Amino acid sequence: MTTASPAQIALAHQLADASAAVIRGYYRSTLSIDDKLDASPVTQADREAERVMRELIVANRPADGIIGEEFGDERADADWVWVLDPVDGTKSFTVGRPLFVTLIGLLYKGVPVLGIINQPIAQDRWIGGEGVPATLNNEPIKASDVAQIAQARIGTTGPEYLNAAKPVFNALADACRYPIYGGDGYLYAQVASGWLDLVIEEGLKLHDFAALAPVLQAAGGVMTDWQGKPLQLGSEGRVLAAANADLHAQVLPQLRALVV
Amino acid sequence: MTTASPAQIALAHQLADASAAVIRGYYRSTLSIDDKLDASPVTQADREAERVMRELIVANRPADGIIGEEFGDERADADWVWVLDPVDGTKSFTVGRPLFVTLIGLLYKGVPVLGIINQPIAQDRWIGGEGVPATLNNEPIKASDVAQIAQARIGTTGPEYLNAAKPVFNALADACRYPIYGGDGYLYAQVASGWLDLVIEEGLKLHDFAALAPVLQAAGGVMTDWQGKPLQLGSEGRVLAAANADLHAQVLPQLRALVV
Repeated sequence: MTTASPAQIALAHQLADASAAVIRGYYRSTLSIDDKLDASPVTQADREAERVMRELIVANRPADGIIGEEFGDERADADWVWVLDPVDGTKSFTVGRPLFVTLIGLLYKGVPVLGIINQPIAQDRWIGGEGVPATLNNEPIKASDVAQIAQARIGTTGPEYLNAAKPVFNALADACRYPIYGGDGYLYAQVASGWLDLVIEEGLKLHDFAALAPVLQAAGGVMTDWQGKPLQLGSEGRVLAAANADLHAQVLPQLRALVV
Repeated sequence: MTTASPAQIALAHQLADASAAVIRGYYRSTLSIDDKLDASPVTQADREAERVMRELIVANRPADGIIGEEFGDERADADWVWVLDPVDGTKSFTVGRPLFVTLIGLLYKGVPVLGIINQPIAQDRWIGGEGVPATLNNEPIKASDVAQIAQARIGTTGPEYLNAAKPVFNALADACRYPIYGGDGYLYAQVASGWLDLVIEEGLKLHDFAALAPVLQAAGGVMTDWQGKPLQLGSEGRVLAAANADLHAQVLPQLRALVV
């Protein structure tokens, strides 16, 4: 596995710093609310934050590619590609709760090798990847060793985002310690920190999961698609995140049954 | 309507400051997690924060009563009674997300007249009540004037807490702009700030709603039980919060139908 260079890791932090400065300026500003045609809320913050991140990448790593939620692809066939989601959890942003995150992923030949999950308001920064220990605000983190469903805490952003997985999620929500809702990318950072044990979601895009898998895996967790395959460029975005391999192995068959 | 005295308002802020200092010390500490017999997570933070608030009340307002989530009633037949919930949203606390709130309500003859909703990590403080303008961190706030269901944003803590209201909530979640989940008392502060328009919940206790109704009402919102009655000592804890009277009037009949 190839690991990100020190220069790339430093750039990833710069991207998080720069996007956070933009986003903080728009948080809870009523001027920032705007709708896409599909009525999902998105903000000036989203666009401006992606713009400043793209400028930094072009200035510092002109050969690296960029895939961004807001402005599409640039040199997406490069070996190294940055995957950006400036405001993941736009609903959380628009309703004024500090649960949205900025997602910064780095792919090497289509495989996520480095991720940052950054919460600009509470100023929580998770980072991790191949050869990069998982930390929250520079403190080492580790996913939980909860191996029993009955002890596990399970999360998902909202029931309205679950389709195929709804019966599986609901059964687990009943069987486990408790479910929590809301959170988008924040949920996976919670698993990496050992505070949550399972997340099931579907309909994620590359920019949603590219930053998450490296952080979670560096913390000892397991994040795959519903067939148990690693998440990468081209993955379908039906995901299972678990605090450890034991727990992952117990839930995976239920999700695999939905896709086979 | 009787209003809280300047001394009581000052004390309410002191309670929020003191409880926040305690709670911040336990947030994201793995040492803090503890279970009640009913398996709902509760923390040392909860108990210590209530203890410091009780001491401040006894020292400053010895004739006022206290009803607390953790340590029960003291002089609950006094004209003025403080109602305390140190950590509302214990699941949010235990999973490390800054959405839990400290709720400080003040009753006069059983009627909530002052409320503070305090988020100790993000340091957001909402206050409001009879004769006390609604503010967030000293800035005036106002609930939204969204009067159409199709434009409204609706929230609830989690589908697992809805029983009787589940069909009504789900139908509104489909009809409205979008639903959000998670948040406990935080949801009502979001309505007061104009970021959210509707909240439906059931099973709330006095310590859950006593602080919420005054803040929301001071911001122009309406919060009642499902019969449209004001929330007070003895209310059942089935609540409807709306950003304005128009919206409240459109939803209330659907909930009233469940109780008549």
